[in-house]
Order: sequence, then structure tokens, then C-alpha cells
Amino acid sequence: MNDTVVQAETATPEAAEAPRGRRAGGGREAKRAARSARSAQSVPYITRKIPYFEVIDEEGLQIIERNADTILEEVGIDFRDDPEALDLFRKAGCDVKGERVRFPRGLARKLVQDTAPREFMQHARNPAHNVVIGGKNTVFAPAYGSPFVRDLDKGRRYATIEDFQNFVKLTYMANALHHSGGTICEPVDLPVNKRHFDMVYSHMKYSDKPFMGSVTHPERAQDTVEMTKILFGDNWIDPLTGKPRTAVINLINANSPMTFDETMLGAAKVYARANQACIITPFILAGAMSPVTVAGTAAQTLAEALAGMAFVQLCSPGAPVVLGSFASSISMQSGAPTFGTPEPALVLYVMAALARRLGVPFRSGGGLCGSKISDAQAASESANTLLPTCLGGVNFVLHTAGWLEGGLSMGYEKFIMDVDQAGMMHTLLNGVDLTENGQAMDAIREVGPGKHFLGCAHTQANFESAFYRSPITDNNSFEQWEAEGSRDLTQRANALWKKQLAEYEAPAMDVATDEGILDYVNRRKASFPDSNI
Amino acid sequence: MNDTVVQAETATPEAAEAPRGRRAGGGREAKRAARSARSAQSVPYITRKIPYFEVIDEEGLQIIERNADTILEEVGIDFRDDPEALDLFRKAGCDVKGERVRFPRGLARKLVQDTAPREFMQHARNPAHNVVIGGKNTVFAPAYGSPFVRDLDKGRRYATIEDFQNFVKLTYMANALHHSGGTICEPVDLPVNKRHFDMVYSHMKYSDKPFMGSVTHPERAQDTVEMTKILFGDNWIDPLTGKPRTAVINLINANSPMTFDETMLGAAKVYARANQACIITPFILAGAMSPVTVAGTAAQTLAEALAGMAFVQLCSPGAPVVLGSFASSISMQSGAPTFGTPEPALVLYVMAALARRLGVPFRSGGGLCGSKISDAQAASESANTLLPTCLGGVNFVLHTAGWLEGGLSMGYEKFIMDVDQAGMMHTLLNGVDLTENGQAMDAIREVGPGKHFLGCAHTQANFESAFYRSPITDNNSFEQWEAEGSRDLTQRANALWKKQLAEYEAPAMDVATDEGILDYVNRRKASFPDSNI
Repeated sequence: MNDTVVQAETATPEAAEAPRGRRAGGGREAKRAARSARSAQSVPYITRKIPYFEVIDEEGLQIIERNADTILEEVGIDFRDDPEALDLFRKAGCDVKGERVRFPRGLARKLVQDTAPREFMQHARNPAHNVVIGGKNTVFAPAYGSPFVRDLDKGRRYATIEDFQNFVKLTYMANALHHSGGTICEPVDLPVNKRHFDMVYSHMKYSDKPFMGSVTHPERAQDTVEMTKILFGDNWIDPLTGKPRTAVINLINANSPMTFDETMLGAAKVYARANQACIITPFILAGAMSPVTVAGTAAQTLAEALAGMAFVQLCSPGAPVVLGSFASSISMQSGAPTFGTPEPALVLYVMAALARRLGVPFRSGGGLCGSKISDAQAASESANTLLPTCLGGVNFVLHTAGWLEGGLSMGYEKFIMDVDQAGMMHTLLNGVDLTENGQAMDAIREVGPGKHFLGCAHTQANFESAFYRSPITDNNSFEQWEAEGSRDLTQRANALWKKQLAEYEAPAMDVATDEGILDYVNRRKASFPDSNI
Repeated sequence: MNDTVVQAETATPEAAEAPRGRRAGGGREAKRAARSARSAQSVPYITRKIPYFEVIDEEGLQIIERNADTILEEVGIDFRDDPEALDLFRKAGCDVKGERVRFPRGLARKLVQDTAPREFMQHARNPAHNVVIGGKNTVFAPAYGSPFVRDLDKGRRYATIEDFQNFVKLTYMANALHHSGGTICEPVDLPVNKRHFDMVYSHMKYSDKPFMGSVTHPERAQDTVEMTKILFGDNWIDPLTGKPRTAVINLINANSPMTFDETMLGAAKVYARANQACIITPFILAGAMSPVTVAGTAAQTLAEALAGMAFVQLCSPGAPVVLGSFASSISMQSGAPTFGTPEPALVLYVMAALARRLGVPFRSGGGLCGSKISDAQAASESANTLLPTCLGGVNFVLHTAGWLEGGLSMGYEKFIMDVDQAGMMHTLLNGVDLTENGQAMDAIREVGPGKHFLGCAHTQANFESAFYRSPITDNNSFEQWEAEGSRDLTQRANALWKKQLAEYEAPAMDVATDEGILDYVNRRKASFPDSNI
């Protein structure tokens, strides 16, 4: 990594304050509290201080683990069009018939637990944005994969690379998001076989947060690795291990039920062998790709994820893996996917507990919704997903911000609203302050019965950092709200994303590095036939 | 209670099914599952099957309990304009100076724990709607106290008795609401000193669910008790105890910080001495009525609630009491109350745990929001309150449905949306089905890799009851949604409340009972001077 990059943003408010010392006193105290509040909002990731919420007990979790083992042993998992994968499993002791792989009880679990790390650091080009994935940590990334975008002015339309870059910029500016994400939206204006270059380059250029790589073809995964090598330069290899640092994380979806295909397997191989992280995610709409029950869906998800993670460990022992779960329901009337309903929340709580028992990081959740617009349906459904995400203990949260219409559309206003909610989660996960200042007995003694706390010393000292402050909710009087145009949340969010894009400034990037990446991209693009594949 | 009343709705779908026996088979099974799903939605109250979520440990809870005792001992609580209250406390061993009551450490807790019931049944005129308040149970009641109503057609306006009755009817029809509530909105078109008659009568006449009484004057509390006596007739006195059955629950707010006034104390005395239930609720906007911290707000809330509940037990040992907590924050910029932020959620989790340790039922939460309209802000804020309400373990949930604008306005569309959310909470609190059918291993064995579950026997047998079904969310394709008018959730909710009101049918009521209550009301109304007070 280049000096310019390494030095960016290392001067925190605390560091700037330290040389001048700290003096007591209400005004100074208050200012310090304010600074502290602001810096808390820009933590590189969240380390939770509250317990996990679990919905079933030890016995229940064991039942699901046993059922997952039964699925792996009796039913098996298909690994399609990848003889190497079948060979790896055969050598590891699996029963392989055709493309069907059956695991002796406990084998997949053992393969994962023997070599997969419990948690790992994903490096960013700005080390202040490195994230630790796993343990008590939560990392928020934006939504992923939608072909459409939506905003209040222009409605719904196909996404372009400009939209993609806009969302990279907005994510870079969002203190509550720790990660730049991956295919935030599909830049449909670019050729399918080349758009990964522009997406990966945009993450590198317009942000300095960690990002995700391309998984739609093994070659595109390799391009991602090569570009990242150039970005990190001398810092690519960790001198302690002699291996590449983990600098890309990647979404390897199972083709549920109980199937992996060669595209995903090929991408996983590339990343795992370069020590980059793979999220193995059974993508399940319960009722279609799994049984209609929570316990059945959880057992199947665990079985599929175990098989995928075992594959990664066989390819490259010790490569970082994440147990992913994307589980929602379908409407049994229309077959349409539904989001923010209670059943997927229960699946999430169960899967988070299973991942902890297994000892691997967990990916799920976000701000999922089925609504086409950023209305009350979108907000309820998203909250009903994001709160379980945080209480259950998701380590890597994809789809934190922007998700609309079951992932078909990325909303500009929805993005701003979701970032606000993610900001609140920082406060929630930070738990209850039980210090003397948190107990606030001095304030209660000072004020006493029948008085108010607005002016007391404790309130004055803490008021800047006291409560989470939303930039978009309206708490004014009805009369004032009406005088200001009776705007709803979407309208206020619309104003904010425009303001943010107008104020965006790119993080500093070393010129030679930038040129090196662009040179690679241009050479590779030139090597393609002109047609789209 | 009269025969007509007792017999209403005792024939459940299960009872109707039983004599005909149960046969196996997909179609029959599916129909039975569907019936079971419907009847599950109309349970009289929820008994949770998932654990409580707690945010601080034993040691943290003890710190807050110690601080509450310190507040009661050192700072004290004011009981204003009620010499009888001061006398009761003095005799119980408190230090009373002027109107300030200071409690020896542990006394308030002891007074509550010695005689207050851990849980109690509130009787409804239809016994199928009796609710048990406390323990693992959750009872949902609509919002309370707003002077305005809002709907999409007519906007915001002062509430009338017609609005009040509309909301009683909608609540009666809402399977997800177990309780008719109290002052759902203020019927501003009726004189202040007489409107309680019309409100209480409306609950009795247009619903057969349990309800709340008037607390704005001791005489109005007495009127509520007298009307309820007539409603229950021969069933008013429990022959086992010789005491009145608990048939009204009432909201006794502290005048925080650390003050109770004579209006609330007077109403509490009337109800407690008639064995009716009192919810003692410190009403706190943190930063104004309490310190800006979670731990400080919780300690003060506990101290105030303990003092109020001890007062009730001194008035009438054994009378049902509920520990209430209404805690939100204020904007430190404008002083406006804010809702759905993370700090009040943390207070809720802490207070729920403290109530369990004390051994009394707990009231808090609901669908609180600051938004003026049923937009995404309202939905996020409400979800961020309702989920903690359910995960934390609130027993009596006031403000479940309809709340807008910090309680200033009752929304027709918001009501419908909140009822839908409350319905989802039934599924969430029911937890994970770990029966053989819930584990669904047969389905996974039948379907296998690469197939879909839509047609398998397990899906066919369970599809009617598989997932919570919302009557208002839209999960159709974008194209279909657009073809149907691109409606948002508020517009769909608007159609549903109108349909429901059009379909409303009043529960049967014994004519003599009805006449008896009206006769009481008319005599009492005639005894008032004509002016409003």
C-alpha cells in the first residue's frame, strides 16, 4: 500500500485533542462529549456490548445440527460441473456418486472447524477502515445486486455505472456503513463481461473502505484479485504469514436446495487460494427452496453452508469463510417472495446461534423489504429485519442500506433512511452505560421532585452525546412541520442524498497506484472480443 | 353477567370440529391447519414461547435497584394535595416532611412484594376475551389519549365520539388486539366532565373485550366502577374471594420527576379499593423529566413506580398493580419528544427485567412514533418500539395501534398498519416449532437437491398456516403493483379500515343490562350543572 493511502485519516479527533491536554469544566466537558459522540459514530466496525438474543435452547440447536448432518449423510449435496470439487470430497472421505456428495456424519463440521478462522481482518486501503469479521463484531455493508435504481425524481430505471459510483460515494460518506459492499447495483449500461472492472475500480477509487469482489466468473474473480494486488502494492503479502492479506470478501451463493454450481465454485476456488474471504450463502425462499418451517429451513441452510465451507477449506485450508444465510418466505398465494415477516427473523436468530456454535463468522440480515417504494411497508419490513440482524449477532451485514423490491431495486432515499437506522444500531449495540456518569445519580439529587433536568450540570455536560440524532426524522410540532411543506421521510431523504453527493470529496489515492490499476484494466478490456457474453 | 353475554363466541372452530372427528389426508390436513392458523390469530392474549432479551446482567440490574432505593431514601417522592396518602406512608414507616415522602431502604419494594399479585386476570364481558396480565403473557391494547385523529381522506382534525366508537369497533374486529383500551382518542365534541360516560359505555356496548376506566377525576373513576358493576351483574363479585372481579384496568401516571398529584392518587384509591387494576406509570421524556442516560432514567422510573405501587398496596393490600414505564427522549436541539430511537428501547429492556425481578406485571411500549403521518418514519419508529416491547417482555402493551405524532393524533391508517405488525408479533412470540412436522425432514428427503418444495406433501399440508399473512403489504411484481395504481401502504390501509367499519357487527348485549347502564349514565349526567369544567 502507498504512503498516501496509509496516512489518510489517521489523525482522529482524540489524537488531535491529546497534545493540548484535557481540562475539566462544563463547556469543555460538553465539547469533548460531542467530539466523542461524533467519533463513536465513525468507528470502523461495531463491537457489541449487549448479549445475543437466542430463540431456542441448547437442545433445539442440537436437533437442528443433527438434522443438518442427516441431510449431508442421507440426502447429499450436488456439486455441478466441477470434477475437481468431487475429487477433493472423495479424497476427504465423502461418498461421491455422480455429482452427489454425501458426507459421513460430522465430517463437514470437522473440515470447517479444523482450519477455518473464527474471525479475520479484512484490510482496506485505508487501514483506519480495516474491519474484523466475526466474534462480537458487526460490519454494515450496503445492498447488493439490483438491476434497477429508484429515486423520487426519476422513479425506477435500469442502473448505470454513474448510479453505482453514486452509491459508492454515499457509502464512503456514511459513518454508519463500514464497508463499501460489492455489486451495489448492476451497471446495466456496461457490457456484462467487462462491468466487473468498472465496479471494482469504482470501489477502489471513490472509497477507501473494504469492498467485495466479482463472483460471476472465475476469470472475473481473478481480475479482482489482480487489481487488489496492485492497490495494496507492497502491503499485499503479510510478512508474518507469507500469504496475501485478506482484502476482498466475496459472496458465494449456493444454488439451493442442496446444489452448488461451477460458476460459484470456480470463483470460490480463486478467492480461497488467494486467501481472500468467501461467504457461503444458501439463498433460500422458504416454501420454494426449503420447507415452509423455520427448523427445516435452518437445518437445510446449515447443511448447505457446511458443505460449501468444507469445500473452501479443502481448496485452501485456513482461508477465511463466513457462514451466510439469506432466508425469506414466499407468499403461499402468489409465490412472490416476502420480507420482514416473523419467520425469517426466527431463522436468522437460529442460524446466528448455529454459526457461533460452529465457530465461524456469520452473514445475514440487512434492511430487507418487498415494497417497491420507501413507504411504511419498506420501513416496517426493513426494521423487522435489521433489529434481528443486530440482536441475533450478524457479523457481516449485506444489504444494510438501499434495498427495495426484494432486491430488484436500489433506492436512493431508501439508502439514506437505512443508513440512519444503521446509525441507531450503533447506539443500541453499545448497550447501557453503567459508569457513574451513566448512573446520573448526581443529576437526580440536584434536580429533585417536580423540577426539570434540562438545565442541570449533568445534562449540560452530556447533551451533545446524550441521544442518537437522526438527520432526517422530523420531531417538530405539527404546525412547524406543516409550515415546512408537510414533507414525508422520503422527501427529506431525497434532499439529503443530493446534498451529500454535492459535498463528496474522493479519498486521496496514490497516482502511480491508480495508473497501475487502470493500466491493468485497460489491457484486460482490450483482450476481450467486442461482443457481450 | 348475563346469559347472552356468557354464551357469545364460546363455539370455537376446534369445538365445532371435534364431534365430527379428524381424518388423515392432505386436503383435510391442510384445512385443519388453516383453521388452526386462524384460531391461533384470535387467541385472547399471547403466551410467549421465546426467551426474554436482556441488555444488562445481574450486577447491572442490582446497581439500578440500589440507585432506586437511594432515590426513595435520600431524594424522596412528593405526594401532592393528598393528606391521606401522607398519613398512610407515615404509618408504614416512611419519613414524611411536608408532602415529601422518603422511604427506608427496601420498604417500598417490601410493601409491593408482600401483597401485590404477580399476575391477575382482567375479566371481559365475554369470558373468551378475559386476559391474564403478567407472567409470560402479552396483551395488546390500542393507543390512548390523543386529541386529534387523522385519516387519508380528511387529514388531521379534532377527535369526536364517532371517531372513538370507530376505533372501539376496529379494535373489536382486530384479532391481534386483545384489549379495547381506554381513551383511544379524546371525544372533544363532548363536555369534558361527561365524556367519560360515553367513552366507557362505548367500550361496553361496541366491544366485548376488556377495557380501561377513566382516571381524570376520582368521581369519574367511581362512575367507571359503577357502570362495570351493572355490566357484570351477578358476576361482579367473585364468590371465592368475596371481592369484586378485576374488570377494569387504569392508567395512573406519575407526574415525573418524583411526584404524584391528587387527581391520579384519587383515581387510584377508587380503583384499588374496588379491586380494579392500576398501572403506575412514570411518564418520562429523558432529558426533561429524568437524566439523559438510560441507567439514570431506569433508576428514577423504578423509584417512582415503586412509590406508586406501594401507595396502592397501602390503600388496598392485594389490589392488582402493574409497573409502567413510558420513557422516551427529547431532541436536545428543540426539546421535542422523539420516539423509536435506541435509548428508549434500552430503557424498556432494563425496566422489563426489573419488573420481573420485582415480581409484578409490566406495561410499556407499543407502536410509538413522532411522525405526523403514516410514512416510513412512523413505521421505523413504531417497529423500533414494538420489537423491544415483545422481545423485552411487556405484559400490557398500551399504544399498540394508531399512535402518531407523539400521541397527539390517532391515525386510522396507522391503526391498520400497527394491527398488522401486532399480528406478526403473535408468530414471533410463538417461537420455533421443533415437532417432527416443524423439523420437516420428510420434505427435505422427498425433494432433494435441485428441486423445489412447492408441491411436496409437507408444503401442501402446511401451506395455509405456514407463514404470517399480511392483509396490506404488497408483494406482487413491480408491473402488477404499478398496474394496480402504485399504491403505498397508507392507501391500502385506508381501503381496509373502511371495509372493516362497513362490515362491523356489534357483539350481542343483554337488553336489560344495556338499559341499566344507560339509566345510570343518564341519571348521573342529569345531576351535573350544564357548564363544562
